[in-house]
Amino acid sequence: MAGNKDFQLACPLPPPAGDRIQLAHGGGGRLTRQLIEQIFLPAFSGLELDARHDGAVLPFEGARLAFTTDSFVVDPPVFPGGTIGDLAINGTVNDLAMCGAEPLHLSAAFILEEGFPVDTLRTVAESMRLAATRAGVGIVTGDTKVVDRGKGGGVFISTSGIGVVRTPSAVDPRRVTPGDAVLLSGDIGSHSVAILSVRGGLEFDSPVTSDTVSLWPAVDALIRAGIEIHCLRDATRGGVATALNEIASTAGISITVNESEVPVTEPVRGASEILGLDPLYMANEGRFLAIVPQSDGARALETLRGIGVSSGARMIGRVTEGGRPRVTLRSPIGGMRVLDMLSGEQLPRIC
Amino acid sequence: MAGNKDFQLACPLPPPAGDRIQLAHGGGGRLTRQLIEQIFLPAFSGLELDARHDGAVLPFEGARLAFTTDSFVVDPPVFPGGTIGDLAINGTVNDLAMCGAEPLHLSAAFILEEGFPVDTLRTVAESMRLAATRAGVGIVTGDTKVVDRGKGGGVFISTSGIGVVRTPSAVDPRRVTPGDAVLLSGDIGSHSVAILSVRGGLEFDSPVTSDTVSLWPAVDALIRAGIEIHCLRDATRGGVATALNEIASTAGISITVNESEVPVTEPVRGASEILGLDPLYMANEGRFLAIVPQSDGARALETLRGIGVSSGARMIGRVTEGGRPRVTLRSPIGGMRVLDMLSGEQLPRIC
Repeated sequence: MAGNKDFQLACPLPPPAGDRIQLAHGGGGRLTRQLIEQIFLPAFSGLELDARHDGAVLPFEGARLAFTTDSFVVDPPVFPGGTIGDLAINGTVNDLAMCGAEPLHLSAAFILEEGFPVDTLRTVAESMRLAATRAGVGIVTGDTKVVDRGKGGGVFISTSGIGVVRTPSAVDPRRVTPGDAVLLSGDIGSHSVAILSVRGGLEFDSPVTSDTVSLWPAVDALIRAGIEIHCLRDATRGGVATALNEIASTAGISITVNESEVPVTEPVRGASEILGLDPLYMANEGRFLAIVPQSDGARALETLRGIGVSSGARMIGRVTEGGRPRVTLRSPIGGMRVLDMLSGEQLPRIC
Repeated sequence: MAGNKDFQLACPLPPPAGDRIQLAHGGGGRLTRQLIEQIFLPAFSGLELDARHDGAVLPFEGARLAFTTDSFVVDPPVFPGGTIGDLAINGTVNDLAMCGAEPLHLSAAFILEEGFPVDTLRTVAESMRLAATRAGVGIVTGDTKVVDRGKGGGVFISTSGIGVVRTPSAVDPRRVTPGDAVLLSGDIGSHSVAILSVRGGLEFDSPVTSDTVSLWPAVDALIRAGIEIHCLRDATRGGVATALNEIASTAGISITVNESEVPVTEPVRGASEILGLDPLYMANEGRFLAIVPQSDGARALETLRGIGVSSGARMIGRVTEGGRPRVTLRSPIGGMRVLDMLSGEQLPRIC
């Protein structure tokens, strides 16, 4: 199965972008980027603020405010380790954290499909309450719409968040410099495997649960330790590989990753092989990349390891010079291969 | 047809709230309120902030920040006088304005259905650009998800907004007092009729276009004129009747409305009669209610009339004492009838 991994990675191959929306436009990879560049950026010039982050940092009455939004369409809405509700809360909290911002207030807008069970909605709302309480944020404003049967997907949730930036300098991928250390906060792939296990009715020996969690405690710890943070990025849609490619492309640098340093648990590795998926492209909901100056690398790693949500942190690679920005994976036996952005849609409705 | 108007108002009658989501849960009336009270308020205690407005007013680093969110699911996405895109922009801008806040920054999250035409998406994005430019706000952060064919409704847009409160005192329905003047910013019903005309393939002699527009200029004018604003409410889902009932219930007062003062254009009146719908329950996207002290009433009316978006303003009624909070409609010939909240769902997917 290892032999056709490269094929599997890019499968299903997207047809050339046509005049209709394809699933891959929402995959977080190349087509999502095309859609943003061709449709949204020309229309919304303010989005440039967002392009470097998962949110915008704005001046507000003398302070630096972070503002972000995300829609959640995961199917099924309840899965091992979480629900669409805590995914929405943690996802938005994490987008704020990735701006170096302390999450403060959240909004939640629901699009419900006629016929959706009220009990499931109650479960989802309760999991949102718990996630918000744990993350120390309030859900302060909301909205509910209902669409007719067959025109929705059960429940969709759009959350937005406001935070206040706590880093002394801006967190910005353009600050990433050759020599910088690349840290990953923990093992990857378990959110995707958890979703796939319920969706496909698969049973694994060891049940895998979603990694959904607020990452702010880890970012807060880095800030309090006085680490100079160049870039933060949570590895959601498109996974670690796509996040690294986005950073490389924005910063105009290259990144080399040591495959043997990337933590993947045995159950996730086993499930990935069965499913023909590469954990490096799998969506995570509680894992992030931090890029810091070489001199801060060891201390940043130690700091992350001292915090529960990032206790499995590893230094997975280094930023290098190089002509065309690219991400390279060094295999345990020393082979090198280019780690490209996600092409096509690996797993629809994963978040 | 006038004879069965009361029946038509409540039709389709919702079955008793069961264990499944019904269209009426999204209608903005009684069942929406039940859903909020039974599911969302217990889970999201912060929502109490929102309950009195269409958004939350929060302290932020010494300033008063307004934060609001809304999802838009209108069908079809392009209609006479607007698109789902400018509806989303103006709707969110207006929710901020109803908090007495100057709209500053918006987010936009798209949930697209596989197969949706990219050209229509381009049209929608372009109309958002125009509406944002007119309203003086930036779209600073966004998200795109794609769901599989048959699991979405073409395009859904969730927008959130941030503004800075500009009123000296809080705009809050609990400040509404017997004697206060009730103003309506213009003629009602045209948004609903515009949507229905395309949806039903109906053709009216005079084409009716949506009233979607930013209301901030009108609110800004009231603030600059030094009017003491007790309450602002845009008359979207559930229409003027539902908005007035919500205010009466929150403030613990009653309101009497003079039917002859409520502006309805001839084409809207004609269409309503054909369709058996009451304009007082129809969703508007560019009309609002302002409640001000009796002494400020005439000057507030004059101020509103001097602004384009509220040039058709009228003083439609007065706040009264009374036991149980209720809204009463005085007919042109002096008859009185209770104007209740919307029960059931008058028009699904109207906004």
